Amino acid sequence: MRDNPAEFFLDPRLAADCYQLGTIEGLLVLLMDNALVPWFILVPQTTITELCDLPTPVYDSLNRLTNRLSQHVRESWSVEKLNVAAIGNMVRQLHVHVVGRHERDYCWPGVVWGRTEKQAYRPEQVEQIQNALSISLGVGFTCLPLRRGLSQ
Amino acid sequence: MRDNPAEFFLDPRLAADCYQLGTIEGLLVLLMDNALVPWFILVPQTTITELCDLPTPVYDSLNRLTNRLSQHVRESWSVEKLNVAAIGNMVRQLHVHVVGRHERDYCWPGVVWGRTEKQAYRPEQVEQIQNALSISLGVGFTCLPLRRGLSQ
Repeated sequence: MRDNPAEFFLDPRLAADCYQLGTIEGLLVLLMDNALVPWFILVPQTTITELCDLPTPVYDSLNRLTNRLSQHVRESWSVEKLNVAAIGNMVRQLHVHVVGRHERDYCWPGVVWGRTEKQAYRPEQVEQIQNALSISLGVGFTCLPLRRGLSQ
Repeated sequence: MRDNPAEFFLDPRLAADCYQLGTIEGLLVLLMDNALVPWFILVPQTTITELCDLPTPVYDSLNRLTNRLSQHVRESWSVEKLNVAAIGNMVRQLHVHVVGRHERDYCWPGVVWGRTEKQAYRPEQVEQIQNALSISLGVGFTCLPLRRGLSQ
């Protein structure tokens, strides 16, 4: 299983469903465009598709950022439980979901995957989320110009 | 968030749904009693409920074993994609799912969580799975007497 980071490009489906908030330690930080729950996605810039095949430095960065993002979600939203998952049945590109769940959210206690309910963010909400994340992650996080969809 | 490993006991719902295959590095290795997909669960012996709160040694062991289990699943079953997740909306006790998925399995490409389809293992199948896992994980893995359900 060889890694070819130079061949990395964001999967079109993730690009279509998410805002690209920024990069940190070679990872893309995405925000699922669904204001019903705080739902972030981390995408390491790799062509490897399984966690267990990642080179150690990429694996360590991914875990470290997953934890920092988890803490940020818990501090910024009303969260009863964090859901952290690498699934990839539909989008094979390796990506880790960090979702803040609450007893009163739209699909509690079920999982968010496979559900179609959705409420798009207003642009100013996304900007606020990006700013808060930037402060929380600090040096190392580079904001991307906010955009969404494939026509980028 | 204090950890009290001495207060750990396996959640009754996990105990009811799974076979307890063994222990390794302070983790319980469970097999979901559903032969429709290879579905293992790792349970660190901790009272902490979020990955991001785990003490580093526990976190590192959990990750290392998640990866070894992932590799084992891929080598032992026909697996198109591994699904690795810490959810915990229903069972709050920290547990990590490692599920081997295949394009022809019962809920592909959806996720297994929230589905009710089930096919119980025959006892000899569980024994075979335990033996293979024991060989694969090697020294450090301690088999538990095979049992299932709450009347243990």
